[in-house]
Amino acid sequence: MVKVGIVGGTGYTGVELLRLLANHPEAQVEVITSRSEEGVRIADMYPNLRGRYDLEFTVPDVDTLSKCDVVFFATPHGVAMKMAPELVDKGVKVIDLGADFRIKDLDVWSQWYGMEHTAPEAAAAAVYGLPEVNREQIREATLIACPGCYPTAAQLGYLPLIENKLIDHRRLIADCKSGVSGAGRGANVGSLLCESSESMKAYAVPGHRHLPEIKQGLSAAAERPVGLTFVPHLTPMIRGIHATLYGILRDPVDHDLQKMFEERYANEPFVDVMPAGSHPETRSVKGANQCRISVHRPGNQDTVVVLSVIDNLVKGAAGQAVQNMNIMFDLPETAGLEQVGMMP
Amino acid sequence: MVKVGIVGGTGYTGVELLRLLANHPEAQVEVITSRSEEGVRIADMYPNLRGRYDLEFTVPDVDTLSKCDVVFFATPHGVAMKMAPELVDKGVKVIDLGADFRIKDLDVWSQWYGMEHTAPEAAAAAVYGLPEVNREQIREATLIACPGCYPTAAQLGYLPLIENKLIDHRRLIADCKSGVSGAGRGANVGSLLCESSESMKAYAVPGHRHLPEIKQGLSAAAERPVGLTFVPHLTPMIRGIHATLYGILRDPVDHDLQKMFEERYANEPFVDVMPAGSHPETRSVKGANQCRISVHRPGNQDTVVVLSVIDNLVKGAAGQAVQNMNIMFDLPETAGLEQVGMMP
Amino acid sequence: MVKVGIVGGTGYTGVELLRLLANHPEAQVEVITSRSEEGVRIADMYPNLRGRYDLEFTVPDVDTLSKCDVVFFATPHGVAMKMAPELVDKGVKVIDLGADFRIKDLDVWSQWYGMEHTAPEAAAAAVYGLPEVNREQIREATLIACPGCYPTAAQLGYLPLIENKLIDHRRLIADCKSGVSGAGRGANVGSLLCESSESMKAYAVPGHRHLPEIKQGLSAAAERPVGLTFVPHLTPMIRGIHATLYGILRDPVDHDLQKMFEERYANEPFVDVMPAGSHPETRSVKGANQCRISVHRPGNQDTVVVLSVIDNLVKGAAGQAVQNMNIMFDLPETAGLEQVGMMP
Amino acid sequence: MVKVGIVGGTGYTGVELLRLLANHPEAQVEVITSRSEEGVRIADMYPNLRGRYDLEFTVPDVDTLSKCDVVFFATPHGVAMKMAPELVDKGVKVIDLGADFRIKDLDVWSQWYGMEHTAPEAAAAAVYGLPEVNREQIREATLIACPGCYPTAAQLGYLPLIENKLIDHRRLIADCKSGVSGAGRGANVGSLLCESSESMKAYAVPGHRHLPEIKQGLSAAAERPVGLTFVPHLTPMIRGIHATLYGILRDPVDHDLQKMFEERYANEPFVDVMPAGSHPETRSVKGANQCRISVHRPGNQDTVVVLSVIDNLVKGAAGQAVQNMNIMFDLPETAGLEQVGMMP
Repeated sequence: MVKVGIVGGTGYTGVELLRLLANHPEAQVEVITSRSEEGVRIADMYPNLRGRYDLEFTVPDVDTLSKCDVVFFATPHGVAMKMAPELVDKGVKVIDLGADFRIKDLDVWSQWYGMEHTAPEAAAAAVYGLPEVNREQIREATLIACPGCYPTAAQLGYLPLIENKLIDHRRLIADCKSGVSGAGRGANVGSLLCESSESMKAYAVPGHRHLPEIKQGLSAAAERPVGLTFVPHLTPMIRGIHATLYGILRDPVDHDLQKMFEERYANEPFVDVMPAGSHPETRSVKGANQCRISVHRPGNQDTVVVLSVIDNLVKGAAGQAVQNMNIMFDLPETAGLEQVGMMP
Repeated sequence: MVKVGIVGGTGYTGVELLRLLANHPEAQVEVITSRSEEGVRIADMYPNLRGRYDLEFTVPDVDTLSKCDVVFFATPHGVAMKMAPELVDKGVKVIDLGADFRIKDLDVWSQWYGMEHTAPEAAAAAVYGLPEVNREQIREATLIACPGCYPTAAQLGYLPLIENKLIDHRRLIADCKSGVSGAGRGANVGSLLCESSESMKAYAVPGHRHLPEIKQGLSAAAERPVGLTFVPHLTPMIRGIHATLYGILRDPVDHDLQKMFEERYANEPFVDVMPAGSHPETRSVKGANQCRISVHRPGNQDTVVVLSVIDNLVKGAAGQAVQNMNIMFDLPETAGLEQVGMMP
Repeated sequence: MVKVGIVGGTGYTGVELLRLLANHPEAQVEVITSRSEEGVRIADMYPNLRGRYDLEFTVPDVDTLSKCDVVFFATPHGVAMKMAPELVDKGVKVIDLGADFRIKDLDVWSQWYGMEHTAPEAAAAAVYGLPEVNREQIREATLIACPGCYPTAAQLGYLPLIENKLIDHRRLIADCKSGVSGAGRGANVGSLLCESSESMKAYAVPGHRHLPEIKQGLSAAAERPVGLTFVPHLTPMIRGIHATLYGILRDPVDHDLQKMFEERYANEPFVDVMPAGSHPETRSVKGANQCRISVHRPGNQDTVVVLSVIDNLVKGAAGQAVQNMNIMFDLPETAGLEQVGMMP
Repeated sequence: MVKVGIVGGTGYTGVELLRLLANHPEAQVEVITSRSEEGVRIADMYPNLRGRYDLEFTVPDVDTLSKCDVVFFATPHGVAMKMAPELVDKGVKVIDLGADFRIKDLDVWSQWYGMEHTAPEAAAAAVYGLPEVNREQIREATLIACPGCYPTAAQLGYLPLIENKLIDHRRLIADCKSGVSGAGRGANVGSLLCESSESMKAYAVPGHRHLPEIKQGLSAAAERPVGLTFVPHLTPMIRGIHATLYGILRDPVDHDLQKMFEERYANEPFVDVMPAGSHPETRSVKGANQCRISVHRPGNQDTVVVLSVIDNLVKGAAGQAVQNMNIMFDLPETAGLEQVGMMP
């Protein structure tokens, strides 16, 4: 059994890790930390976990954590970069669900995250944990930067078009809609049911932290810097991201886009290209480590529309983290990740 | 008092007309029709109207309706075109909330609505009831085609850019999100709470009936045919449309977009340009005849993003219809339309 | 015009007062206070009020407030009792939407609200602002204690049975369901959309502050102390209270309960007894100052079930406060309160 | 592997069976039927099941079904009673998720379900599939009548009190709240998002079909006929039942109710008695085969309040059906039922 530690277990990605790992056949959570909830039993905070875990939250401590085989950081940015390097030195594999190691250009990172990066070597060594792009590097990695939720949905949707250089890389538009759990479990007014249900709004139109991350991934795939307009929206639901991705075909000839998408993801266990003409619903992946995609070319014009849906807490966070762990420990990639999306 | 008739009063736009007209100081509903609910008291079907109306639904009948000063059609397409011409001939003003008279090119209309148009002269004479564009023609009109909900939000958001020829008219992208009430009160599985809550999806990406309507309006404003990609999404809320509109500036010079928007709508009682940097929420117009707009230019690049929100049942349907009535009967344009958006 | 001041205008009852008073024909808000938001324009905090108010929040100050004819306190408990007596002395009428003056027995008050009461004389003089019980006293009052939301729904539902001594006053059960806005606009985790949507729970079963208030009102009506079990539930919606009230008939003879309810409320503008067999929906009163009631006797057994619905922010708070103001200033009782419930 | 057939697989209990059985280690779905969807692939109707099932819906046929070891009926009442007896004769075990075999008194059954019962012998032989009461009989049974959703929540909550004869059996009040999925996937107006979200209502107060079922079970436990008032409510959420159960203690002595509940369910894998003072949330069991219960005695008076929550589609339907299957086939009772409730 892989011995697992979780730093920062009280937020939504933390409890989702616990939900998924509760039924993982080859991993077991040994340590879970939270400064604010020290001594509280997990199941007292999250009654859905009653009967599954006897653990209490403890204060994060490198010595204790270093007895684990792998440590997940489900923390705000700035935490993992302080502890991860030492754990890695002690031979522990680290999977960061936060943002500390996602951006390779640390000046860009500092600009968007508003602090100095204190672990540049770790940042340089970290592997971006999108298995559909970096599976082989993940296999050998000791430090994984799990992609953000929007970046997962957007990159998986754009990759076949970008890799095949089919669309104008300077004019990408990603109109993305997220459930409220993307804002985390913090007690802020904007996430109250009375403020965020029965309403829709865009936010962070002038700039959102996931913008440089998506650009970095797509620029690598395009082998040149891409131009991207990214508009996130807050949607009145708990879970789910719906990315609506626009691109302009370079060449107005016929392309079998459907076939191209199907082939790109033919061997991917967690990316499902829907039949031509489909409209994926976020609920079809609710609770599941799955990305569902369809590709459209309305009116046979030169604009391509890709629809890409994930559960932000699963394929957009905790599920993808477990998928990375499975790859790193040479377990079946789907171990512990066979949940079916909950419909209705 | 303006004597009002309503044909097709059982759907959501019908009951919303009743809600608004209940407090209209200068109009009174005299007749309301429904074939299926003949003899039923309004208040038995819509308990929110108990104590406000004593009317019963009657079978639609031109003689009875012709005693009204104005008749609203809150009917599926194909109904108004059969009855409206006769009513107009009898001197009754007609306001159609449906789609029968929205599209001037009747071949296009037939292609999208799947039937022959039986009243081409009326269609030619009808005035498109978007007061922010056609106020003077509305004042003289006898037959009004009320805009659809998406077209209202999209046109009001794009107009300042298009009229000033600031953006590339061939590459418009309207990514629109609608509450479920846009699908009407019909008992279809897709609109069940269990199917449409806690989920988001695009629909009709290959083509939606509001596409030709938006193109018609924007092409007129642009004085040339526009190219538009329109992707509607079903959002888990009852009311509200959020249009996220993308355009590419022709010229990368500085434009004071904020000022341009403010000036365009300075005298419009029902269009509110928010301060620079704002993100309008649909709930701020819930129940109100209001469109709220903000304009962004992320990263000072050449892509403009306009955010435009309405309540699809009010400014997108019943409220706009009453606004048209007010203009036609020379009443204060805001009469009966002073509801404040309901927050929370 | 009645000059209105509002203390504590940033919460949900405050903004709801503003929404209702925006269209009140004979009242005008002159002052609105908030310590935390001093200098902020109302419309910047609540964009639904853009174009309706030019006011800014100011720090609460007795001198400024005393220029008003009436001051509403939309504050947490403990605030009104400090300022209200001085305002009343200066001839200002005060309507407290909070809990400071609701309970006559100040020992009971202190026990439930956890502080000493500092204005016992004002508490003794205050009139409980339930117009359906105390209309004549309200007319003469200078200080009104507006009922809580649950107490409004529960008392209006029980009154006909209790006043007529039809049910066992020792065995009342009030199973009540409230929307999340009842918890206010405070940033607490339990009110997040992700915590409170897609779920139902009871809370405060061992005891809730509205218990002594309901008991006080029903005991007065019963002319003896009642026994009451009160279980509130948090329901995944913004607005609305549904009280399901149980009572045991003293005498198994036939009673025309329907007629008794209709007669009790025959002249009440804001209480609507539905036809026999009805099930009122909270949405039928959404945004409206209305209580809808139906009475059942399942299986013709000796248990009576009363269903009573209100909008907690309107008839359960701000609307009832305006109704009290109308009575106190001899205005038409329905002035500014003619909103129709929003369906859908 | 247990070979499974499902009759009526298109409704919500059908798709939930498929979700649960997709990961069951010792059962496999071989046949799934639907008259209306013959030839449709499961995954085309329910995209969450893409990649999990290759099956198509077929027309129900006894010969085909008789090759299964067990057949689940996820059908409206009246269907199972026609086919189940023949299947049982052929040696197939039958588990009916519908209502055909729940009520032993067939006159009562006919009165509530509005048809003659055509399989009285099967009805007499059927075992009521509430494992917490009938585990041993289930083990030997060939025909199981799975309990309804409300009856599961209500009986599990009342049983410790009733079996110990602690409360007045003549005065039970079950105030129950259900998510909308309880109404099924039928396209009826009342279940539309626009009709059922943002609202709460009671329904069927004069009488609901689950009333005689709950009374039958509680009367058996009480060893005398109980008196029950049962009021179901429609709650704006997809899944979940919250039963609030009231009883009057016969004897005002001290009882350790908490201990009594804990002992009653000490060995039950799917009933979780929460710590004293708890308020279970329906979301803690969302997607899980779990019942969570807490017991209160407010103010130490003689009224007991039990809070009991389940997911109506899991412990209230499909999960309980699988639990019955596991018992009948001597599998571990938790096989395939280890899903953790989804929070958030």
